[in-house]
Amino acid sequence: MTEKTETAPGWLAPEELESMRERLPILYVDAVPVRLDDTGIVTHVGLLLRIGSDGTVSRALVSGRVLHNERVRDALLRHLEKDLGPVALPHIPASPQPFTVAEYFPTPGVTPYHDARQHAVSLAYIVPVAGDCRPRQDALDLVWFTPEEAASPMVQQEMTGGQGVLLKQALAHVGRLY
Amino acid sequence: MTEKTETAPGWLAPEELESMRERLPILYVDAVPVRLDDTGIVTHVGLLLRIGSDGTVSRALVSGRVLHNERVRDALLRHLEKDLGPVALPHIPASPQPFTVAEYFPTPGVTPYHDARQHAVSLAYIVPVAGDCRPRQDALDLVWFTPEEAASPMVQQEMTGGQGVLLKQALAHVGRLY
Amino acid sequence: MTEKTETAPGWLAPEELESMRERLPILYVDAVPVRLDDTGIVTHVGLLLRIGSDGTVSRALVSGRVLHNERVRDALLRHLEKDLGPVALPHIPASPQPFTVAEYFPTPGVTPYHDARQHAVSLAYIVPVAGDCRPRQDALDLVWFTPEEAASPMVQQEMTGGQGVLLKQALAHVGRLY
Amino acid sequence: MTEKTETAPGWLAPEELESMRERLPILYVDAVPVRLDDTGIVTHVGLLLRIGSDGTVSRALVSGRVLHNERVRDALLRHLEKDLGPVALPHIPASPQPFTVAEYFPTPGVTPYHDARQHAVSLAYIVPVAGDCRPRQDALDLVWFTPEEAASPMVQQEMTGGQGVLLKQALAHVGRLY
Repeated sequence: MTEKTETAPGWLAPEELESMRERLPILYVDAVPVRLDDTGIVTHVGLLLRIGSDGTVSRALVSGRVLHNERVRDALLRHLEKDLGPVALPHIPASPQPFTVAEYFPTPGVTPYHDARQHAVSLAYIVPVAGDCRPRQDALDLVWFTPEEAASPMVQQEMTGGQGVLLKQALAHVGRLY
Repeated sequence: MTEKTETAPGWLAPEELESMRERLPILYVDAVPVRLDDTGIVTHVGLLLRIGSDGTVSRALVSGRVLHNERVRDALLRHLEKDLGPVALPHIPASPQPFTVAEYFPTPGVTPYHDARQHAVSLAYIVPVAGDCRPRQDALDLVWFTPEEAASPMVQQEMTGGQGVLLKQALAHVGRLY
Repeated sequence: MTEKTETAPGWLAPEELESMRERLPILYVDAVPVRLDDTGIVTHVGLLLRIGSDGTVSRALVSGRVLHNERVRDALLRHLEKDLGPVALPHIPASPQPFTVAEYFPTPGVTPYHDARQHAVSLAYIVPVAGDCRPRQDALDLVWFTPEEAASPMVQQEMTGGQGVLLKQALAHVGRLY
Repeated sequence: MTEKTETAPGWLAPEELESMRERLPILYVDAVPVRLDDTGIVTHVGLLLRIGSDGTVSRALVSGRVLHNERVRDALLRHLEKDLGPVALPHIPASPQPFTVAEYFPTPGVTPYHDARQHAVSLAYIVPVAGDCRPRQDALDLVWFTPEEAASPMVQQEMTGGQGVLLKQALAHVGRLY
């Protein structure tokens, strides 16, 4: 999960956030952008292409922090707009129930999810996207994969921190993991 | 749940269906049509206004049988189009997981759901509807209620067979039952 | 899904059931028996070892039909007791919401699930089992696998009709598919 | 949600926690303790009787903070043991998926949940309890209510911060809200 520039009211100076990350679990959202056909079948999954500070290429879900006094659904919408652009038309779920909760620990192996910087607890949602996606900021590109491709070793090994596992859980939840 | 005229391949003559209803649980779907705001909050719930064979007025969810060799999501789409018209633009859920399962028994009191004609087991889904609704067939009208109105005694008493309870479960699932 | 001898009130003569199977979707339940540690983590998954009429060995979930006028939770309990014995102490879920719905079609490829005999729609539940399991009837044995073993190609290829896919969905739902 | 004395590794001095509460959403768990019959039907819901610092009596769910480097399921178990005693035998759910997410805001009205001290985001779980409950610490007593009693105005008005709404959502999820 790459941290992004934050300017909303709940914004924290980097050193403040750093100090809190050692003391409290940090609340995140993960969104799996999907394309649906008319009957609701997931035909494609969207993954962000990112280049890390060390030059490594990785694929990532839309992901980010929930700010102080921000609703979870507003955080979802904010991160989706930031990563997919203003005309992606994401369909934020009606129910606040996530399909799973991903617990990213600084120590690898406690759960399948790992974040060296912090203990993050992420509410994970599947979000149908109806419009045009124009990635912005640090995301280089958004690529749509079929469910089969998304679960393939090639794509899985380009995902980090356990997001490949989270993606497979999303595919299982929509009946598209074989 | 009012039975509707069926002409799809899985169609059964009335006397055939009648005989099977005494022997097997019949698979149904219930759909709760909703309007969402940009953040996914349910602002309105759509209820069909029906007039029964005895002249009584009732409010109903979109509901109907799953046919032989028909996928659940195709049954959902078929019943929504039949009741809301061809330009309702329902968003069929990506996940086959229903928010609950309503078991309608011919004997009242076994569950909160009752159907004098049969033992029906219904998979219940919340379905956002984005387009214009033009009720057809035996539905007189579709009326949009706020969540508060939908849970009120006035609307609840106009719903039959336990569908008022099912509606309250749907509102609870989307965080809109108070 | 192997059909088992039925003697409950909703029992049907084989020829009656046969005729209905060509006309209506048949309602089933699938149960994934699991062992949990004190914190609710799934440590093992129980699979039945069955020998088909043609002598082939296969692994199966606990699975069976819901009878007329039988509640889904009573059908779950009945099939678990029939397959795991009287002292298995299954913890039937409090919520009727299945983790998924598996649609077994007579035509392969419509969904990942296939049943040559019928169109069966199965509500799938994860059921913690606390007692001793003593398989009866046509089940030869119950074997407990770790989540890693259960998702392995060796076990997956011994499962038929798409139940291997359903098992992986169950593992994903409890956060144990990697 | 009453804060309880914390001595685990993730413990924070009160002034540290106070300062973070103004900057970040704080992660909580809410547990609804239930008694089940053999078929999984919820027969009773357990509510804690608390006396606030101002002498007012209130009913509460089991609730508390998730500590740094603590898994959600360990936090659930810790708070249940703290509030219900060491032999309550809670069945922590196999799936990390909460039945809902309750967002407690310091400003009333943003959501149905309110916490004057902080912005808390709580993962809510239904937890079957099989053993004897012996409330400890600041909880005076644990009282078991039928689902009908739990949803009644008398009990609802004794719950604060929106936990009455959360309790009704739990009852709806298990099919016991009428």
